[in-house]
Amino acid sequence: MLSLHALPEKTIERLSQYRRVLLKISKQQNKDNIFSHEIASILHITSVQVRRDLMLIGYSGSQRKGYQIKMLIQLISSIIDAKNGQRIALVGVGNLGSAIIPYLNSKKKSKLQIIASFDINPDKINRKISGVNCYHLDELPSIIKKENITIGIITAPDDAAWSIAEMLISAGIKGILNFTSTSLRILNKNVFVEEYDMITLLEKVAYFANK
Amino acid sequence: MLSLHALPEKTIERLSQYRRVLLKISKQQNKDNIFSHEIASILHITSVQVRRDLMLIGYSGSQRKGYQIKMLIQLISSIIDAKNGQRIALVGVGNLGSAIIPYLNSKKKSKLQIIASFDINPDKINRKISGVNCYHLDELPSIIKKENITIGIITAPDDAAWSIAEMLISAGIKGILNFTSTSLRILNKNVFVEEYDMITLLEKVAYFANK
Repeated sequence: MLSLHALPEKTIERLSQYRRVLLKISKQQNKDNIFSHEIASILHITSVQVRRDLMLIGYSGSQRKGYQIKMLIQLISSIIDAKNGQRIALVGVGNLGSAIIPYLNSKKKSKLQIIASFDINPDKINRKISGVNCYHLDELPSIIKKENITIGIITAPDDAAWSIAEMLISAGIKGILNFTSTSLRILNKNVFVEEYDMITLLEKVAYFANK
Repeated sequence: MLSLHALPEKTIERLSQYRRVLLKISKQQNKDNIFSHEIASILHITSVQVRRDLMLIGYSGSQRKGYQIKMLIQLISSIIDAKNGQRIALVGVGNLGSAIIPYLNSKKKSKLQIIASFDINPDKINRKISGVNCYHLDELPSIIKKENITIGIITAPDDAAWSIAEMLISAGIKGILNFTSTSLRILNKNVFVEEYDMITLLEKVAYFANK
């Protein structure tokens, strides 16, 4: 039985990982079924964890044969993916932003596509960058609505992050992946924010690498 | 007084953020001192948090004038940065890897520099990519040692992550920033690993954005 409540964050992260493992196996191997311990060993987690997550989404598999790979992919997709996919806006088309567009959009079958980007640099505006139209930031509210965009990625400078997040949220965005160092967590309880600050994490790695 | 023990992970993350705020202010404004509430308001955290972190590193500032900006930058740097900087190897020079090199190396004054990259694609090997030499993966152990590299960034495909991490660790790496979906947490207690899996986090944002 699927719960109507949202699943825990960590479960969602692992379901996303399981699906990628399963998609790869279904492409590379002539294999219909898989056991929890096989998934677990690829991801270096415990098979108890895998079984618990899959029980949570209502699939317990067969003790003799394990899980049906195709069915499991479909089930996970039905939970993770929005039915008609979700459209993403990226704000801040610098070094990082312009690299993330091709990286994310190269996953062809992904239900998640960056379909618009925004900047304030005249050299970038009204051009296609990595295959995606770049608009002036002022056009953000209208494009978000017109294009049915529900997710924002912020790759702008730190001190612009807060005002950009406010623009995105006013325009109706429901989730934000924030690459800046400005924490947006306390912004709005109805919008899901994931912090993804590369420089800070790299400096943290460096600190502990030096201990 | 500085403690000889490692500071908490979250404190290190915030110190890294404070330093970036302070560097920006010292560049943009003619200002010698700053109060905890000013730093706090830029980062949207509480001033109590700022004061507590800075007490941990032994600087309590002056009640009347706040913290001296230059001194605070120096103090944080003396804690976060290794004295002679740290050298980074990036493994997997695909879309994402080749984008991260210029993004990270563009921070000119950073003590952290990517100075070698590795791949197995013959088209990439023995070329400079984004200004950094790309070597064959087989050369990783010797280059890491020769170049005194202490940090690894993994931007390779998921199923190569584990063996690359093992190579990096055998070669003497002390910290890893892992962009793949393969968790490396349980790998080795003497090596600090930070997981940084963009696709998984984006799928998580998408899931909660759709609730």
